[in-house]
Amino acid sequence: MKARVTVTLKSGVLDPQGKAIEGALGSLGFAGVSGVRQGKVFDFDIAETDPATAANLLQDMCEKLLANTVIEDYRIEMV
Amino acid sequence: MKARVTVTLKSGVLDPQGKAIEGALGSLGFAGVSGVRQGKVFDFDIAETDPATAANLLQDMCEKLLANTVIEDYRIEMV
Repeated sequence: MKARVTVTLKSGVLDPQGKAIEGALGSLGFAGVSGVRQGKVFDFDIAETDPATAANLLQDMCEKLLANTVIEDYRIEMV
Repeated sequence: MKARVTVTLKSGVLDPQGKAIEGALGSLGFAGVSGVRQGKVFDFDIAETDPATAANLLQDMCEKLLANTVIEDYRIEMV
């Protein structure tokens, strides 16, 4: 089973990387682009075949390693 | 208009970060997890209201800044 986890900063948390990209896009001449925020995406091959069990495993992985749940949100998708 | 760009390594390109995460997950006791690959996700507010024009703008942004098209693929989604 393939799965994808998307980790993004919670709204309200300052995103310096996003700001830097926004500035770079502006200097490259891209107008009308704002609110740039960067996150991470993780793809996995999960041996578990039961979707519910796999989702629990992935949630546990997010809570323990992939996301800093104080400032980040995560979303789990079975692909 | 909100848009999301997902940038991932092309298949076949070695992903040391993914390997490191895979190792860490293993040492945390998460069994049955393989093929871990990490990518980036970018969220934008685009002033352009025409979806086709916005998509062209985003593609241009990917080609010029967001993705290294030699080793990375990108996917554009209008949210």
